[in-house]
Amino acid sequence: MTGQRSDARRNYTHILAVAEAEVAAQGAQASLEQIARTAGVGSATVRRHFPTRKALLEAVFKQRVHDLCDHAHTLRAEDDSHSALVEWLRELLTYSLAARGLADVLSCQPLQDEATQDSCASAIGAAGALLLRRAIDDKAVRADITIDDLLTLIIGIALATENYSDPATPANRAFRLAVAGLGDGT
Amino acid sequence: MTGQRSDARRNYTHILAVAEAEVAAQGAQASLEQIARTAGVGSATVRRHFPTRKALLEAVFKQRVHDLCDHAHTLRAEDDSHSALVEWLRELLTYSLAARGLADVLSCQPLQDEATQDSCASAIGAAGALLLRRAIDDKAVRADITIDDLLTLIIGIALATENYSDPATPANRAFRLAVAGLGDGT
Repeated sequence: MTGQRSDARRNYTHILAVAEAEVAAQGAQASLEQIARTAGVGSATVRRHFPTRKALLEAVFKQRVHDLCDHAHTLRAEDDSHSALVEWLRELLTYSLAARGLADVLSCQPLQDEATQDSCASAIGAAGALLLRRAIDDKAVRADITIDDLLTLIIGIALATENYSDPATPANRAFRLAVAGLGDGT
Repeated sequence: MTGQRSDARRNYTHILAVAEAEVAAQGAQASLEQIARTAGVGSATVRRHFPTRKALLEAVFKQRVHDLCDHAHTLRAEDDSHSALVEWLRELLTYSLAARGLADVLSCQPLQDEATQDSCASAIGAAGALLLRRAIDDKAVRADITIDDLLTLIIGIALATENYSDPATPANRAFRLAVAGLGDGT
């Protein structure tokens, strides 16, 4: 039993490593059949570990999302709650541009069931909401803004620029615009 | 010769009508093979009229883009150049949410060649730039904003919400946020 379990564990780890490389190269549409072939297992084995494409992508991005959430907790100690929020949003944008497919995973509508309670999107949302709450309490940003509004903008900027040869430049310009608004010309 | 030309024209019009229905149902990833089957022609015929997926999508969205550009010209007569710009951007967002695949077409990086000079993206960009220029001249929006910055945000909001069951609500919230910025809590 223990032997079977550690075999399954090795199998999982191996498939996940192959999936990470494939998603980095192909984005969220990476072929599950190609992942199975490269990993040297059958498609059924891949599906047993990752029943859906979303489950596979969630596993691929788990560590990056964990790092982002950690950083949000660190930033709560910053004096300036406005710049702490903006710094974290900028980091989320940078991650989304670097990790192809992450923006796709985050743009899925959250489902109201237990399986998604610890999804990448809900973890990101909960971490960001803490920084937003603090900035609103400090009257540093408008009180009617929700974390979902902010995530829609950040994920959208990543999706709109991901096919560019140099996404960072247009993405960062759009980010600054979203933070500052259109302004009144002054 | 004339008979052949009018046959080809009918063929083109028929394939385009089928493509419009298919793109409305499936979005930018609509199957070219399915379009050929439904139209009752071979894949080679579809490819002769539309050498690339992008060429097909450009043709599908041509009328909508034309209407948007027309409206931009009408809005130039409005007294309030800030609200004229915002109204047009909101209309672009509404179109992008309604016409599945349009945001995908617009999110392609413009190529520096003649073939793209009259693309959907360049037509939208040119029409929006007139409204933006006027708003900047009126000191109604910040002078460092470009039409590409604005289009990145609008297209991004559409892409980030297109999988939602009700995209309009989160999209319009994110739009208002982008126009106003984070604010300073007042």
